[in-house]
Amino acid sequence: MKSPCAAIAARGFVLNLSDTEIADLIDVANALADVARTVTLQHFRTADLVADNKRPADFDPVTEADRGAERAMREVLAKRRPQDGIYGEEYGQTPGTSGLTWVLDPVDGTRAFISGVPCWGVLIGLDAGDGPILGIVDQPYTQERFIGGFGLAELRATKTTPLRTRQTKSLTDAILFTTFPEIGTPDDRKAFEKVRDQVRLTRYGLDCYAYALVALGQIDLVIEAGLNPYDIQGPQAVIEAAGGIVTTWDGGPAHKGGRILAAANKDIHAAAMALLA
Amino acid sequence: MKSPCAAIAARGFVLNLSDTEIADLIDVANALADVARTVTLQHFRTADLVADNKRPADFDPVTEADRGAERAMREVLAKRRPQDGIYGEEYGQTPGTSGLTWVLDPVDGTRAFISGVPCWGVLIGLDAGDGPILGIVDQPYTQERFIGGFGLAELRATKTTPLRTRQTKSLTDAILFTTFPEIGTPDDRKAFEKVRDQVRLTRYGLDCYAYALVALGQIDLVIEAGLNPYDIQGPQAVIEAAGGIVTTWDGGPAHKGGRILAAANKDIHAAAMALLA
Repeated sequence: MKSPCAAIAARGFVLNLSDTEIADLIDVANALADVARTVTLQHFRTADLVADNKRPADFDPVTEADRGAERAMREVLAKRRPQDGIYGEEYGQTPGTSGLTWVLDPVDGTRAFISGVPCWGVLIGLDAGDGPILGIVDQPYTQERFIGGFGLAELRATKTTPLRTRQTKSLTDAILFTTFPEIGTPDDRKAFEKVRDQVRLTRYGLDCYAYALVALGQIDLVIEAGLNPYDIQGPQAVIEAAGGIVTTWDGGPAHKGGRILAAANKDIHAAAMALLA
Repeated sequence: MKSPCAAIAARGFVLNLSDTEIADLIDVANALADVARTVTLQHFRTADLVADNKRPADFDPVTEADRGAERAMREVLAKRRPQDGIYGEEYGQTPGTSGLTWVLDPVDGTRAFISGVPCWGVLIGLDAGDGPILGIVDQPYTQERFIGGFGLAELRATKTTPLRTRQTKSLTDAILFTTFPEIGTPDDRKAFEKVRDQVRLTRYGLDCYAYALVALGQIDLVIEAGLNPYDIQGPQAVIEAAGGIVTTWDGGPAHKGGRILAAANKDIHAAAMALLA
């Protein structure tokens, strides 16, 4: 397996992006996060926030924060990158001509959002067709922006901190996060529990913030199931840029979603994958 | 049952506190939260943070952040309120002569703390013997302070927001938080699941922040088990001051801990208690 930094660097190679274009892409990614931050915070913890249900069988909420933030990001892209495709959670796929697609989740963690929890986020991935070459996990309420790609791996908050994953070698020393028991099939859950039973500490329910903590070198593993491309491409780029590995449970490419294993390094990735198989 | 505001106001009545002494108690409570915020943030997300294990059978971490923050709070109390008792998670009970006891949890959510999660907190309760008459749930990283008691019910952050619980009447509209599946016996969990199966949305793993969200009017229920007095007295005062109800699962007083039900109002409290019984 290539080193993770090599994996992210190798993607989109055929597009032959110039330094000027790379700088523009980074600038646009930040502009997207900026507008999404503004729109989402206008709705957060407001009395008139209405959660509609996208999936009547259970409760899959969506709000005007989700929709408004995606519309605002689409307006930025229409102006600055009309040649790129868009794949957003709320408004679907818009084709482009450049070979690049912006993969957007305007509010990852809508359940957290409607509950007033601080840890929902805005996810932005720039897909080169075979996976993200740039990603942002933005945390509007805590004003933390995790960005990775094109040589960048940073947490930008009141100060800027380099992102670097941990070097934990053994599951018995590892910290694992997941959104189980909320998602996944019973079989998925059984596989997850095999890892849970080995690690030092398991924590639940943090949505995208958990991936940011892998990149920040605070935790070692995130295991989830049933993800969409827009749930993972932003976090994937950030973790890979920080030295971690993100694949499906069987080691395949992660950018299409599904059952996802994000790990701080190749040792802990291999140990978890052996139990999930 | 008395209204919750009446319940908190009735406690400590025999102590006959003057307005000057009440102002001093509120000022001391804030001073405690201030020093604990400073000490805990010095350790948060640092590379040299070491988690010792208090309970070898599983993993019950404690760090220098916990110990240092409690020592700092005890220094403030030694200087400003030597007549009061102290009951702290890390250094135990110190008797006083005033009839008042400061009940301190320097880091509620140490598992979250060592994982880099933003939502751990500092809990401060002022126990009049039959329960708290003042409480703080402080969130150092997000710089949010939830305070309740002596007529106060506020979130103090970049702006000050009044705390007021929700008026949700039915479990089918309610949002429930818990630290299950991490804590509680199998029987406790079965009872919890009866409520979980009725509510609109259940979320996991937020420690004391969940109680703050009840007070803030964002969610309706927190159900937990195995709590200590220092886990609940701060949150209890804040929720009661905001109009909510905090009892044990069988409706008894909550200030000694155990199995705790925190609810936004008496209707939702009664509905949850009927299922937990």
